[in-house]
Amino acid sequence: MHVTGVIVEYNPMHNGHLYHVEQSRLQTGADAIVAVMSGHFLQRGEPAIVNKWARARMALQQGVDLVLELPVAYSTQSATLFAYGSVAVLDALGAVDSLCFGSESGEIESLNRLCSIIVDEPPLLQSYIQSELQKGVSYPRATGAALVRYAEGEPELDERVVGQPNNMLGLEYLAALRRLDSSIQPATITRIAAGYNEEKITHPKIASATAIRKATLERGIETAEALLPELSYQILREEFAAGRGPMRWENFRQPLFTLLHRAAPESLAEFVGVDEGLEARLIEAARRVDTVQELIAYAKTKRYTWTKIQRALTSILLGFTREEQAALPADGRPDYIRVLGFNERGRDVLRKASARAVVPILTKMPREQSQSPMLQLDLRATRIYSQGYAHAQPGAALWDYTTPVQRIQN
Amino acid sequence: MHVTGVIVEYNPMHNGHLYHVEQSRLQTGADAIVAVMSGHFLQRGEPAIVNKWARARMALQQGVDLVLELPVAYSTQSATLFAYGSVAVLDALGAVDSLCFGSESGEIESLNRLCSIIVDEPPLLQSYIQSELQKGVSYPRATGAALVRYAEGEPELDERVVGQPNNMLGLEYLAALRRLDSSIQPATITRIAAGYNEEKITHPKIASATAIRKATLERGIETAEALLPELSYQILREEFAAGRGPMRWENFRQPLFTLLHRAAPESLAEFVGVDEGLEARLIEAARRVDTVQELIAYAKTKRYTWTKIQRALTSILLGFTREEQAALPADGRPDYIRVLGFNERGRDVLRKASARAVVPILTKMPREQSQSPMLQLDLRATRIYSQGYAHAQPGAALWDYTTPVQRIQN
Repeated sequence: MHVTGVIVEYNPMHNGHLYHVEQSRLQTGADAIVAVMSGHFLQRGEPAIVNKWARARMALQQGVDLVLELPVAYSTQSATLFAYGSVAVLDALGAVDSLCFGSESGEIESLNRLCSIIVDEPPLLQSYIQSELQKGVSYPRATGAALVRYAEGEPELDERVVGQPNNMLGLEYLAALRRLDSSIQPATITRIAAGYNEEKITHPKIASATAIRKATLERGIETAEALLPELSYQILREEFAAGRGPMRWENFRQPLFTLLHRAAPESLAEFVGVDEGLEARLIEAARRVDTVQELIAYAKTKRYTWTKIQRALTSILLGFTREEQAALPADGRPDYIRVLGFNERGRDVLRKASARAVVPILTKMPREQSQSPMLQLDLRATRIYSQGYAHAQPGAALWDYTTPVQRIQN
Repeated sequence: MHVTGVIVEYNPMHNGHLYHVEQSRLQTGADAIVAVMSGHFLQRGEPAIVNKWARARMALQQGVDLVLELPVAYSTQSATLFAYGSVAVLDALGAVDSLCFGSESGEIESLNRLCSIIVDEPPLLQSYIQSELQKGVSYPRATGAALVRYAEGEPELDERVVGQPNNMLGLEYLAALRRLDSSIQPATITRIAAGYNEEKITHPKIASATAIRKATLERGIETAEALLPELSYQILREEFAAGRGPMRWENFRQPLFTLLHRAAPESLAEFVGVDEGLEARLIEAARRVDTVQELIAYAKTKRYTWTKIQRALTSILLGFTREEQAALPADGRPDYIRVLGFNERGRDVLRKASARAVVPILTKMPREQSQSPMLQLDLRATRIYSQGYAHAQPGAALWDYTTPVQRIQN
């Protein structure tokens, strides 16, 4: 049985994701697809539009065989940590043969070559990064720009490879595989139709999740119908109808502003990603504006990108401190693998994994208090996410314990 | 000019309060009435039904001449601290001649006698208090019950004096006057018609604020019309219509539950009033229930009364720590006197006070960051209260700076 891993957020799962699953299966000759998926808070520092169980059902309906949860300790961090955590979960399962990710280039060879350059970091690249950093931009941006300059001297690295967001994320996956000395073989497929951050809808059936969320929020869920697989659309509708979505930052306005209103700057700086004076700017912003969108716009600078601020706000909302981050496993392996859902083939993968996984596989949450700070953070994230629902959902704080693993027959 | 102080919450100001103001004026021969009023969070640990400026307008419309704000550091504490802070504000003004409070007995002499007993605390009373405490009840309750037993041996202290809630509060005022060595003369008037905690409406025009809030919340504001002075009713209606009320604990459900969901028990125990295992019970309760009312009911014990839990929740919501409480002025005087509103006579009182007040009188909020922890806590309380409005109120976090002192001509 050849098992292929994919790394996803499915926020929500759309036709482009479906294509990615199908192509991954074809290209790697997979018998089963395992998705590692962010839980309730995502890589760009946002709450997921619907909860992780609904999104796991979407995945299972569209051909994913097993859905694992990426711990929030990784999911709301930089691309490097997000990628590392995702690859580490797949690697720890002990049952994954390939990792297949989308990229603009679709060429694994040139990505591997680029990965070597980043890992080796030759002096010329280092000096480019330094000079970019001096312009006051963030580190990922500086690295990206430095690579573009560096690639000018390397004919095989043209602009289809360097500086494209999905290529860059792919590079992080490759670097993580190396760091973990993983036996998982990387593969890539060319992304189609819609750019990663593209906000407009230009193709009749394919649009980015960003564009779909925007359309849904601004013009109603119906505008997204053609862009989503039928069952994804249906799940999304059901969740919204039950008051469990659309979830967005504004759903957390009251607790977030309360936290900012009650914090002293020095206490705010204890949270992951809040530094370099961001704490004072956030506190000031909360007094001046009335929505989370306005708050981010107010606090934004060249160095503090929208995404970085959102991630900092997520840390504040979840109470994720630097001290807590420092207590995460030193070897960077997850403490556990959390199963959100599976079908028959997914159960076969779990059977294969049961003998090989290097950490416990959780298909239900143990009742006794966990000693894992990583798991405690996940449980906290669910409790806090549950406070954002438009209609109170009885018992939602404990859904990590009471929601059964999602199972479909197919 | 004879100036009489009253200590109030006006939540909301009703016909019974109007009677109290009128009687206080008559009984003490007052030329002007000064009310010291709780701000946004009240003695029973609840958010006020409408904000402090609306409630100050109610007071000014019903004959109060000057409204001062009781700092939240006192307003959400035990009866002893509440009373002490209120008397300290009136005393610090330097312009108040009498203090007039409502009581069940209406006899200042017997209250004074009882006050002496409490202050002196004879051994027999001490032993009664100890034996009551061993039943697991709260200290105020133990003291109350001990006094009832003690009074059995003192014919002049009958049940009209001992164990009545307003008498007990009056005793605290008397004790505070002694502790401050104040020149203010105490007086008392008999409360009419409705008990302090009475939840039912039995008189056509007079009901307790508790009963009025209950009727308003359950059966609509119209049910309270006959029980409120016309202008109080009008102000309340306007506030509600603008989405600024009715404010109650459920308006703060999301931030409160978020705080409980994200806290470790030991960090929760840093807040004023959270001790003896209450922290763990509150955290557990937040996971089990869905409303603040259910939360309190779940956490309630014999020793942890409803009120005590509400006060603890207020500390948690406001982030009022023991460390911060310890930094309050050691002599127990307020750092400032905050003026919420006045009329012409009130302005005369302020003029009289300007030469005599022992602390600064604030009619507007200084722009520079205050060094007073007491004032910072008040500003924080307003910011956090402003998050509870049903409709977002632009700029509400800064209303302490931007709302002018309330003035009426009469």
